[in-house]
Amino acid sequence: MSKGLPKRSEDYSLWYNELVKRADLAENSPVRGCMVIKPYGYSIWEKMQAELDRMFKETGHQNAYFPLFIPKSYLSKEASHVEGFAKECAVVTHYRLKNSEDGKEVIVDPDAKLEEELIVRPTSETVIWSTYKNWIQSYRDLPLLVNQWANVVRWEMRTRLFLRTTEFLWQEGHTAHATRNEAMDEAVQMMNVYAQFAEDFMALPVVKGVKSENERFAGAEDTFCIEALMQDGKALQAGTSHFLGQNFAKAFDVKFATKEGGLEYVWGTSWGVSTRLMGALIMAHSDDNGLVLPPKLAPNQVVIVPIYRGEEELDKISAKAKEIMAKLRAKGISVHFDNRDTHKPGWKFAEYELKGVPLRIAMGPRDLENNTIELARRDTLTKETVDLSAIVLEDYIASKLDEIQKTIYNKALSFRKEMTREVNTWEEFQEMLDKEGGFLSAHWDGTGETEEKIKELTKATIRCIPIDQKEEDGKCIYSGKPSKGRVLFAKAY
Amino acid sequence: MSKGLPKRSEDYSLWYNELVKRADLAENSPVRGCMVIKPYGYSIWEKMQAELDRMFKETGHQNAYFPLFIPKSYLSKEASHVEGFAKECAVVTHYRLKNSEDGKEVIVDPDAKLEEELIVRPTSETVIWSTYKNWIQSYRDLPLLVNQWANVVRWEMRTRLFLRTTEFLWQEGHTAHATRNEAMDEAVQMMNVYAQFAEDFMALPVVKGVKSENERFAGAEDTFCIEALMQDGKALQAGTSHFLGQNFAKAFDVKFATKEGGLEYVWGTSWGVSTRLMGALIMAHSDDNGLVLPPKLAPNQVVIVPIYRGEEELDKISAKAKEIMAKLRAKGISVHFDNRDTHKPGWKFAEYELKGVPLRIAMGPRDLENNTIELARRDTLTKETVDLSAIVLEDYIASKLDEIQKTIYNKALSFRKEMTREVNTWEEFQEMLDKEGGFLSAHWDGTGETEEKIKELTKATIRCIPIDQKEEDGKCIYSGKPSKGRVLFAKAY
Repeated sequence: MSKGLPKRSEDYSLWYNELVKRADLAENSPVRGCMVIKPYGYSIWEKMQAELDRMFKETGHQNAYFPLFIPKSYLSKEASHVEGFAKECAVVTHYRLKNSEDGKEVIVDPDAKLEEELIVRPTSETVIWSTYKNWIQSYRDLPLLVNQWANVVRWEMRTRLFLRTTEFLWQEGHTAHATRNEAMDEAVQMMNVYAQFAEDFMALPVVKGVKSENERFAGAEDTFCIEALMQDGKALQAGTSHFLGQNFAKAFDVKFATKEGGLEYVWGTSWGVSTRLMGALIMAHSDDNGLVLPPKLAPNQVVIVPIYRGEEELDKISAKAKEIMAKLRAKGISVHFDNRDTHKPGWKFAEYELKGVPLRIAMGPRDLENNTIELARRDTLTKETVDLSAIVLEDYIASKLDEIQKTIYNKALSFRKEMTREVNTWEEFQEMLDKEGGFLSAHWDGTGETEEKIKELTKATIRCIPIDQKEEDGKCIYSGKPSKGRVLFAKAY
Repeated sequence: MSKGLPKRSEDYSLWYNELVKRADLAENSPVRGCMVIKPYGYSIWEKMQAELDRMFKETGHQNAYFPLFIPKSYLSKEASHVEGFAKECAVVTHYRLKNSEDGKEVIVDPDAKLEEELIVRPTSETVIWSTYKNWIQSYRDLPLLVNQWANVVRWEMRTRLFLRTTEFLWQEGHTAHATRNEAMDEAVQMMNVYAQFAEDFMALPVVKGVKSENERFAGAEDTFCIEALMQDGKALQAGTSHFLGQNFAKAFDVKFATKEGGLEYVWGTSWGVSTRLMGALIMAHSDDNGLVLPPKLAPNQVVIVPIYRGEEELDKISAKAKEIMAKLRAKGISVHFDNRDTHKPGWKFAEYELKGVPLRIAMGPRDLENNTIELARRDTLTKETVDLSAIVLEDYIASKLDEIQKTIYNKALSFRKEMTREVNTWEEFQEMLDKEGGFLSAHWDGTGETEEKIKELTKATIRCIPIDQKEEDGKCIYSGKPSKGRVLFAKAY
């Protein structure tokens, strides 16, 4: 099992791919660029969904569902939007198959051609705003706060499990507001919701910021984002929230009667996170032994492995394990007892390390005699013998899980701090990028041309202009022109 | 609002369509045959999903996710399967748009043609069994118990909101087993799970049965189903569970090493329910005033409407309402306080009747004085004044909700019993079908030809051969040939 996992230091990319497959998270499907999310991987995604859904509802949003297909003409209504998505659209042109004349194969029926081609949604702004036109007449209909859990398709040429796939799962929020300020507040609020989810549940520290014009969503006036750093020094955009201004309202003619009796275009936002978060979770914390899962997202927080010879020993250990499981479950801790006789304890230890179960309890006959257990932490790979008579087990385990959640977060935070550096010259910038990567905090002259040039020369992009950017006079790292503050550069996934 | 709802007795079909739209459940989208599920409708679907998901997990199933697209050649691998779905497939042929030469429109890029066309899944047996081939090697890998929540597309020519739409949401379970018996038990188990869900949560009595060969799923050896009766006397198939035999295992070459050292094809099942259940829920219970929702699936089980003049009265009523809400919520009862000043109480009463909220509490100044509330039941449209000093409110409301759930079920059950009739002659059969519809329990000679002929002449189909069919010698209602038991005929959605 895990002994075959490549090392991060030798081939980070191969390590990631192998880990995703061996830990039963996902695999490539027979369909180009599309993945199969396997049950273990999906159960982590379900935990993410549940928490996010709760946070969306707590902030007043409701779920709904809009069509998978978008008429071609709708996609074209917002100019920069179609520009951004046209090159990666799956297009439905026919609606029927039939047998070929010789009866030997099934072919597309040429008589069943659609009058207007349908695009498989790459994102749903156009079909949703065309619907909002009917839903919004007056200020009383606003704000409209809707979210959708859905699959979307973007025809990517180079795909990687979870990080970039042709089809992926996501949620997309689409809101409509009476004023510019209210829409802007919503966009910022959702960036904050995403940041809180990443930090509290994924144990993933993120930088909150605004995208430069070049990196903005196609159709947005401002794109807010959360950016995380992976262990190989590359950045990963983990979520975006867009202030759409009145762009889609104008494209789809969505106006509302104001309180004062006027008629105005509606202000909009959209925001989303996807199964890409799974990639971030895996790459941020895992090690050469396998996954490291933060307890709050682990499908099983604790696993119990019995060490025994013969039925009689197993029976005794099982009785004790059931007692422990009842206590842990009553405390809301998820626990799995692996009493399979087809695998040895050593194999099981490696398996649960690979799968990132936060705490492992091992129990043998001597433990029963002494009223002890062996408790192993996945994150630190440390073990201790716990005297059950000296503690309240469920409280002890709960506090260990809290500690693990914090430790994983703090480790990622220290790493990011270490890997975030102020650089002041073009040489320093290039050298640091080549050597270690990470976030480079540097001055930039604010132009798209400079940004483009830097990307061309180094592959680094501006990840964001941090929300907490300090005012500071400086010179652009590349052009030498004046700058008022630092932005964050990095190579990115 | 509801005063404009058509009457069931005058135009059942129009009543249904209008109800779905006015109660904010769903509407037609700009995309032919695809619907938008609106927030209120979606919140009912979410409740259905949550219960079903829990039931699937309790019976040992795990969720996973498989691709939206199916290569055309995969669909063709199981002969009767492609035969069944070829006529209603959305086909993706291209993966890019571009600007036309004159720059005036966006067109499909002819250079971006796919080598092999992709079908938008109408169901996922083929792509899943092609994956199972890699997941299953040995008896240790069995049973494999997987479910998927997904959208599917079937290009229907005549669509109706929820009942038949081009795209719909559903769950599809796909399981693999070592023996024929085990797979058969699974298929039967899932029919029972569906029946239990329909009866306990949807308050919808169903007949469990087996489909005749003509009505079987394309690729199955046996299709189990649950059939419900709507208020207009038409049947509705609410869920199906298929015993696939070894058909898909053979089509995709999925074999496993047996305990005894042999190599055998795997046995399979698949089973699904969809957003069609929403249609069944609406049509089974609702009345001319609007929706009637069983409390277990109602997004809000209780609504409180204040009756007041001026701020001061509202403040007092609000204080009392908050007290009541806290008590109900502590008991797990969902409640909404509608204190909008933009609408009058009468308007709100009609609105919550239309939306099917099971219990409505109205409170005015005199209620405050007397420590009473007015409690109105949606199902019976009855009202009572409740003396709050004489009861424990949360217990009273909880038991009322239980009573409503049961009453709705019993009403539907009585209706179905009344509308299920044994008929013994062809004349009787035709007459009853024309007059009142309902389930007709009749003898059938067991041949597809007779079944086809009856359908042609009367539009009635065999809904199922009931699981609890009694052995009884008789003569086929149409052909007069011998029969060993009665089957259920009906016109159906």
